[in-house]
Amino acid sequence: MELLSTNACFEGEHRRYRHTSAALGCDMEFAVFLPPAAVGNQSRNVPVLYWLSGLTCTDQNFMQKAGAQKRAARLGMAIVCPDTSPRGLGLPGEDDSYDFGSGAGFYINATEQPWAPHYRMYDYVTRELPQLVEAELPVTDQRAISGHSMGGHGALICALKNPGHYASVSAFAPISNPTECPWGQKAFTGYLGEDRSRWEEWDATLLIPTARERLPLLIDQGTADEFLDSQLNPEALADACEKVHHHINLRMHRGYDHSFFFIASFIDDHLDHHGAALGLT
Amino acid sequence: MELLSTNACFEGEHRRYRHTSAALGCDMEFAVFLPPAAVGNQSRNVPVLYWLSGLTCTDQNFMQKAGAQKRAARLGMAIVCPDTSPRGLGLPGEDDSYDFGSGAGFYINATEQPWAPHYRMYDYVTRELPQLVEAELPVTDQRAISGHSMGGHGALICALKNPGHYASVSAFAPISNPTECPWGQKAFTGYLGEDRSRWEEWDATLLIPTARERLPLLIDQGTADEFLDSQLNPEALADACEKVHHHINLRMHRGYDHSFFFIASFIDDHLDHHGAALGLT
Repeated sequence: MELLSTNACFEGEHRRYRHTSAALGCDMEFAVFLPPAAVGNQSRNVPVLYWLSGLTCTDQNFMQKAGAQKRAARLGMAIVCPDTSPRGLGLPGEDDSYDFGSGAGFYINATEQPWAPHYRMYDYVTRELPQLVEAELPVTDQRAISGHSMGGHGALICALKNPGHYASVSAFAPISNPTECPWGQKAFTGYLGEDRSRWEEWDATLLIPTARERLPLLIDQGTADEFLDSQLNPEALADACEKVHHHINLRMHRGYDHSFFFIASFIDDHLDHHGAALGLT
Repeated sequence: MELLSTNACFEGEHRRYRHTSAALGCDMEFAVFLPPAAVGNQSRNVPVLYWLSGLTCTDQNFMQKAGAQKRAARLGMAIVCPDTSPRGLGLPGEDDSYDFGSGAGFYINATEQPWAPHYRMYDYVTRELPQLVEAELPVTDQRAISGHSMGGHGALICALKNPGHYASVSAFAPISNPTECPWGQKAFTGYLGEDRSRWEEWDATLLIPTARERLPLLIDQGTADEFLDSQLNPEALADACEKVHHHINLRMHRGYDHSFFFIASFIDDHLDHHGAALGLT
């Protein structure tokens, strides 16, 4: 694991690392914010919020634009931001569109060629990256997970498919029902093939009925989000939750869009949600 | 004045505008954050912090990366971010380097050709832009000014040269003595010519001895700033202040660099400084 850069930030540290990923078969970069409690003289290991970003993002968008570090510093919470896909593999078409291939891993394990050997972002973010981070950095195995848009979908499926693995989950404007929207259908067709029955295990709305762990879902969604009707569909998720009495707090925010100005406006609420679940408040 | 975009942000609004600048002889874009107090049902006009950005920045870097809106929303303060130079004029060499021409207006009025008719960022940020903003947006003529690096230099000279115009001034890692550093010497030679006596009115350190108004200076500087020794020289400014008993609060922050992670870490202190001067706290 190679340290690429360090920036002091709110008396903690923002760092970027590069490492060779076995799950993805390529080098990956990720960012971490370590709060003062983890880097000071009397430092201790701290719990981690894993943040999964949306289409086109790298490890840097959230770290630079969400304004999350101030509250995380105060809570004593680390934040780890992976990239959103493998990159630079030279696969045919990997850079042809913003919503498939590079920057669009969708946090699933691909089964179709040529993607299957590399596009295994689900294994990467749920297994390999936490193992690496917990072995190499001053963090514990107490984990929370959140994300935005494609990353909100990722956070939801990672939590729903891994009982006991995360203390809490939340999402901003998640792709809530990807099997039923153009972004999800394009990605799942490409990575998983035409057989829609194989898509179901990667769709939060379809996972809710059989979820073995009932972590409450905190979902923030802007009403002026340009992708709300066509791609995100949080109502489908809310309906699925209602049917099985899975607790969901879906907050609709009047006038907010899909941008980081929306995320920044409510990120502290999410950090507090995770901080409480992680025993930090 | 053409509205380019609006984003809801902390119950206020982030907006971008384009207008034709008479001072600069070209179209310019700027950003504004309006706090909830200025956009709600019972809105009122609010004071403005003018933020001047550093080399290579547009109106967007600070708005997206500094995390300033939360505190500004609470204080009831607008923030206006101009671009850092005219752009797209087709002048020879305007895009050849990061530290001269586009993105590097240095907040001065050029006297040399071909820059003189357009590179008048001082007139723009101290006169034309406030007049426009105060006429068209829900803001008052109570003003504060701050900035980073080249923009920290800009904030200091704008305040020092305009007694009564600003209620308060602050800077992050300002180019404190531009006549004595490579960035300043390159810019001043290009915009003002070889005669160094004509540079002096654009150097904060040289303006301090004759300043007619003694606004206290709040300056934050990281000790790990890669430009501290070669370009920024806050000690020269502090020495000049000490000689004439001009109040300066130069805070050296151990381990912080020149990035927005540094700005974000301390921006709330600056907003509080300006909020107090503007009667908001």
